[in-house]
Amino acid sequence: MSLYAIEIRVTPRRGLLDPQGKAIQHALDSLGFAGVAEVRAGKLLVIELEADSPDEAAARATRMCEKLLANPVTEDFAIEVARDAAQPEAAT
Amino acid sequence: MSLYAIEIRVTPRRGLLDPQGKAIQHALDSLGFAGVAEVRAGKLLVIELEADSPDEAAARATRMCEKLLANPVTEDFAIEVARDAAQPEAAT
Repeated sequence: MSLYAIEIRVTPRRGLLDPQGKAIQHALDSLGFAGVAEVRAGKLLVIELEADSPDEAAARATRMCEKLLANPVTEDFAIEVARDAAQPEAAT
Repeated sequence: MSLYAIEIRVTPRRGLLDPQGKAIQHALDSLGFAGVAEVRAGKLLVIELEADSPDEAAARATRMCEKLLANPVTEDFAIEVARDAAQPEAAT
């Protein structure tokens, strides 16, 4: 078993209203930041997970997204197994 | 002027309490997902911004984070100028 750091991006689906993004865009405009064409606001989750392989870690993260982390109606998610979270020195 | 897509990750600073991450970790555990060592919950913002160069786009995104998007006391941010958001065909 190794510990994997998994990065999950949950973003509002393209074409659906993103009220949080719109609010941020409006606030940036009010602060004088010009030229902001669009803002999309999503979630970034970093999960440290014990698994036997990167593939198993990614598969379990996908199930987590389907069950809890992403709204299947309004959100998309992407999963990246970023690195071994804690890679012990190789034994000699 | 080109349109750049800038990805901004705002994450709770290491060592500070992350109640949202803890709540997600607890919910995953309740759903039967074992082996979750840690969850950190942050924000992912994708901003489309008109700028003269990637460097200028990154500099303006940094100011946006300092002024509005990240809490300087509790959060870290990272900026990546991901791509030209809409690359017109080069004129011949």
